[in-house]
Amino acid sequence: MTDFLDNPPASLPPPALPAARSERVRLRRKRDRGRYGRETIDAILDEALVAHLGIVDERGQPFVIPTLHARHGDEVFLHGSAASRTLRALSAGAPACLTASLIDGLVLARSAIHHSANYRSVMLLGQAREIDEPAAKRAALRAIIEHVMPGRWEDVRPPTDQELQATAVLALAIDEASAKIRTGPPVDDEDDHALRAWAGVVPLSLAAHAPQPDPQLSPGIPVPPYASAYARPAGP
Amino acid sequence: MTDFLDNPPASLPPPALPAARSERVRLRRKRDRGRYGRETIDAILDEALVAHLGIVDERGQPFVIPTLHARHGDEVFLHGSAASRTLRALSAGAPACLTASLIDGLVLARSAIHHSANYRSVMLLGQAREIDEPAAKRAALRAIIEHVMPGRWEDVRPPTDQELQATAVLALAIDEASAKIRTGPPVDDEDDHALRAWAGVVPLSLAAHAPQPDPQLSPGIPVPPYASAYARPAGP
Repeated sequence: MTDFLDNPPASLPPPALPAARSERVRLRRKRDRGRYGRETIDAILDEALVAHLGIVDERGQPFVIPTLHARHGDEVFLHGSAASRTLRALSAGAPACLTASLIDGLVLARSAIHHSANYRSVMLLGQAREIDEPAAKRAALRAIIEHVMPGRWEDVRPPTDQELQATAVLALAIDEASAKIRTGPPVDDEDDHALRAWAGVVPLSLAAHAPQPDPQLSPGIPVPPYASAYARPAGP
Repeated sequence: MTDFLDNPPASLPPPALPAARSERVRLRRKRDRGRYGRETIDAILDEALVAHLGIVDERGQPFVIPTLHARHGDEVFLHGSAASRTLRALSAGAPACLTASLIDGLVLARSAIHHSANYRSVMLLGQAREIDEPAAKRAALRAIIEHVMPGRWEDVRPPTDQELQATAVLALAIDEASAKIRTGPPVDDEDDHALRAWAGVVPLSLAAHAPQPDPQLSPGIPVPPYASAYARPAGP
């Protein structure tokens, strides 16, 4: 079946290789599904609405937390409450892993074992740096809102200084990064082609539906086009 | 903005509480978003097509890996290549975190800072056990295929003994588990209600599209209903 789990953790020495090619993130198997180009990595990070952040507590217990994010140049911004223990641990230098994954389809093979999924995923490893300076913090929050809903920022009240203080913003460099992709039809054993099972792909995508106005919305405010025509991947 | 990151890791002593209520997974803040019922946890695990598995290597580096899964009773099954280092580490008792998250909508507030997402997520902590016995392994693979595509198993060639040997299957107990949910419209500051920004929710869901037959599909094999009418959440 699907081999998402073929992308293993590693225990090699720290990477000596340049960005996006470190040993820790190099795929050990299914190498044909490894993609290293920054364009590919960036496109997946940009399309994914949610990422999953992994961190470890002092007992060695991992935690995986869904979070909104935004890529900006060579970094990915994250944010949350300044009181969040997760963000404080990250600010203090805890090693992190940020994974963004998109599921594009279900791959139905003639044999159970060759079932799979078409997907695109990116894994970033590293330590985050905290963004303190108010203007940079505001810019990062803007990037996150614009990543989720392009065009939105100009329509809303920007954060006050007090709101900024209550918010922690972190940046994770796109340094140790890899992408993994599966596309295309099922790959069955030759002998199985004679089976009478249907085989193919059921494509999947994230769909947006008609916006639901806030019950407290004042009359006469139209739904903005970025909300009524929302789609991923987002436009530029 | 969204406070996914308000669900923090913890460093408390090991839990003394019963299933799904341990200290490690109890929400520290935004407690109104914490849900502990097994029904809620199970429904989220069942609807989510993909989960994100967190494990830690011997250097303390977390890795977050997307994977298919299936809940069966009080456990969640995972699988992958028997050669996978991740699965071998899990079999050896490495602490794991499995997070399943569903994004239900984008919450557009009148102020930048109150933007959020409607979502449902589950986090399971624990150590996996390996499933060795061939019949149990086959049953777990069946559960994973049926989780992804209910009705599919009966139509396909089941795994051979050799295929089973090449596959590792693990079970993670639903023991230390918590769910976190946000629903509903934006919650703006009272003062911001006078702003002329549209506010509301853009609902999101995973959509399936017309099945694409394998180019090598033999003629005369119709698309099965479970593929042509695919939807999440899946039927019983």
